[in-house]
Amino acid sequence: MSAEHDQIRAVAWTGAGVRLLDQRRLPQEEIYWTIACVSDVAQAITKMVVRGAPAIGIAAAYGVVLAARARFSEAGSGWKQLLEADLCDLEAARPTAINLAWALARMQAIIQGLPDHRDPESALLVEARCIHEEDIAANRRMGELGTTLIEGSVGVLTHCNTGSLATGGFGTALGVIRHAYGKGRIEKVFADETRPWLQGARLTTWELLRDGIPVVLIADSVAPYLLGQGEVQWVIVGADRIAANGDTANKIGSYGLAVAARYHNVRFMVVAPTSTIDWNLSDGTRIPIEQRPPEEVLTLGGKAIAAVGAEAYNPAFDVIPAHLIDAIVTERGVVRRPTHERMKALFG
Amino acid sequence: MSAEHDQIRAVAWTGAGVRLLDQRRLPQEEIYWTIACVSDVAQAITKMVVRGAPAIGIAAAYGVVLAARARFSEAGSGWKQLLEADLCDLEAARPTAINLAWALARMQAIIQGLPDHRDPESALLVEARCIHEEDIAANRRMGELGTTLIEGSVGVLTHCNTGSLATGGFGTALGVIRHAYGKGRIEKVFADETRPWLQGARLTTWELLRDGIPVVLIADSVAPYLLGQGEVQWVIVGADRIAANGDTANKIGSYGLAVAARYHNVRFMVVAPTSTIDWNLSDGTRIPIEQRPPEEVLTLGGKAIAAVGAEAYNPAFDVIPAHLIDAIVTERGVVRRPTHERMKALFG
Repeated sequence: MSAEHDQIRAVAWTGAGVRLLDQRRLPQEEIYWTIACVSDVAQAITKMVVRGAPAIGIAAAYGVVLAARARFSEAGSGWKQLLEADLCDLEAARPTAINLAWALARMQAIIQGLPDHRDPESALLVEARCIHEEDIAANRRMGELGTTLIEGSVGVLTHCNTGSLATGGFGTALGVIRHAYGKGRIEKVFADETRPWLQGARLTTWELLRDGIPVVLIADSVAPYLLGQGEVQWVIVGADRIAANGDTANKIGSYGLAVAARYHNVRFMVVAPTSTIDWNLSDGTRIPIEQRPPEEVLTLGGKAIAAVGAEAYNPAFDVIPAHLIDAIVTERGVVRRPTHERMKALFG
Repeated sequence: MSAEHDQIRAVAWTGAGVRLLDQRRLPQEEIYWTIACVSDVAQAITKMVVRGAPAIGIAAAYGVVLAARARFSEAGSGWKQLLEADLCDLEAARPTAINLAWALARMQAIIQGLPDHRDPESALLVEARCIHEEDIAANRRMGELGTTLIEGSVGVLTHCNTGSLATGGFGTALGVIRHAYGKGRIEKVFADETRPWLQGARLTTWELLRDGIPVVLIADSVAPYLLGQGEVQWVIVGADRIAANGDTANKIGSYGLAVAARYHNVRFMVVAPTSTIDWNLSDGTRIPIEQRPPEEVLTLGGKAIAAVGAEAYNPAFDVIPAHLIDAIVTERGVVRRPTHERMKALFG
């Protein structure tokens, strides 16, 4: 894996705060915000300045550092109690990705172990950096593991953006694509544009081209036709939450891709760190599905694209049942044809 | 069927020329162009000022009237020979919809029977008007026939725009939806936005709301999830060309809808006049699929939505195999579970 395919970091700690690459403005503008206040971090998550399940978790972890800094400076030894509200705000910023709650739980475990009277910032920063670095390491490992599943030089299709922009760096599904491309296992990358937010068009093309990987963009509805043409051997996607049986919530459209992939006997790979697994849910039916504003569908770039008076239904995610998934790739190994038993066997 | 659900006509003959409602500008602007020159009609078809298989055929028929007017005025009894080039231009304007060639063949049959020395305009206008009126009558009949298939008060999903805007008036799939809605058989209409051209968002919502039918817009990739939720009992689409065995070319995305509908045991209806059937093709594999410019995917409203350097694959149509279709509704009757034999049995 040459470094040239891995140049982008969308989330970074600067000391002054957390620096976020504004993903609403790409690909036209590459704007970085340094955010020094936890409520602005929560807003950045809700408004999708930063998006992608692992990236949200990392941004939230740095948000806790900022919150602790402010609360300690404000209240001294009373900081822990005040921090509770900040943690709640962060957790409520988006509902579907479990990584957000997971990262906050890790930060909270550290908080509990800290004394009241000492400045908590440096200890929390160590943990946030750790979450960030572990994520990149997990992505690199998943890149290697996922690549072993890909035989020959194939066409792949991905959905949404699951790359450096969506994670601490390197990416989940795009990490596999990065690594496999570097190893000569991928001949052609197709990217769904991923309406309504156009993560595929705006972010995945930008990220892949920036890192030297050619990409062919398609409208989402082209995918089943493309699979029928035999152009694609693997559909590779990320995950926002994986239930204990392997059912996987991911960006809206993933479910249809999985149905079409199975229909065409094309393999379907989910790539996500184990932090994405929600062991409290026995299956995917109870994963909360975020409903986003109708305006995301009714308008585009502030301009109406539908007639006045039209309603819109805008779920941000759907759930891929485990039986349509050929492999779940995590940093701790690959679960083929996931079931509750196989998930438990690998992760204990 | 109350008249209030059928108010729109996108193609009309004015005497001076053919009047087209510019479908590129809807829903923001309702602009009508009166086109008096055949090459402008061909351009209007290519550039999708007018679109929808039956509407293209009707516009082309009026285009032949304009061509004959000009050629007779230019060359007198030599008009027929000069007209050949105009017919070629019209036929080349778009490749997939067979209705274009079908309408031109009807006009050509009249041309052949006309004397060289007499002004051909009025005879050709009679035929063009006839094609137009027959189309509306066929749509009304299909509306009735399609409605008989719909039991109870159901949810329906449609793709692209197949309404008054896409036909002489009333519509094919939207004609069934208009009629069935009027009869109380439809509780809820969902419309795919239909990327990249957004016919569903821009045209179908405009047309349905204008005619008093509420509509819920979804991103194309939401459809399989929606079918999985049990919200839809019938997917109803139009057709650009139907092969002799029932294989149906329609707007890109139709194939994926049919795969998802079958997976969820949701019924799938194709609504198209018999002029859409191409008896020369035994199946759908040889239907030419128009490739549209990559810019339709890479840009939106003139603004780049993908990174510079991204390629795009932009087929305008796909082909639904007959075995995924529950019913083809034509003005001459309904073919259930279409096969070559059943198609022949109905249409002789």
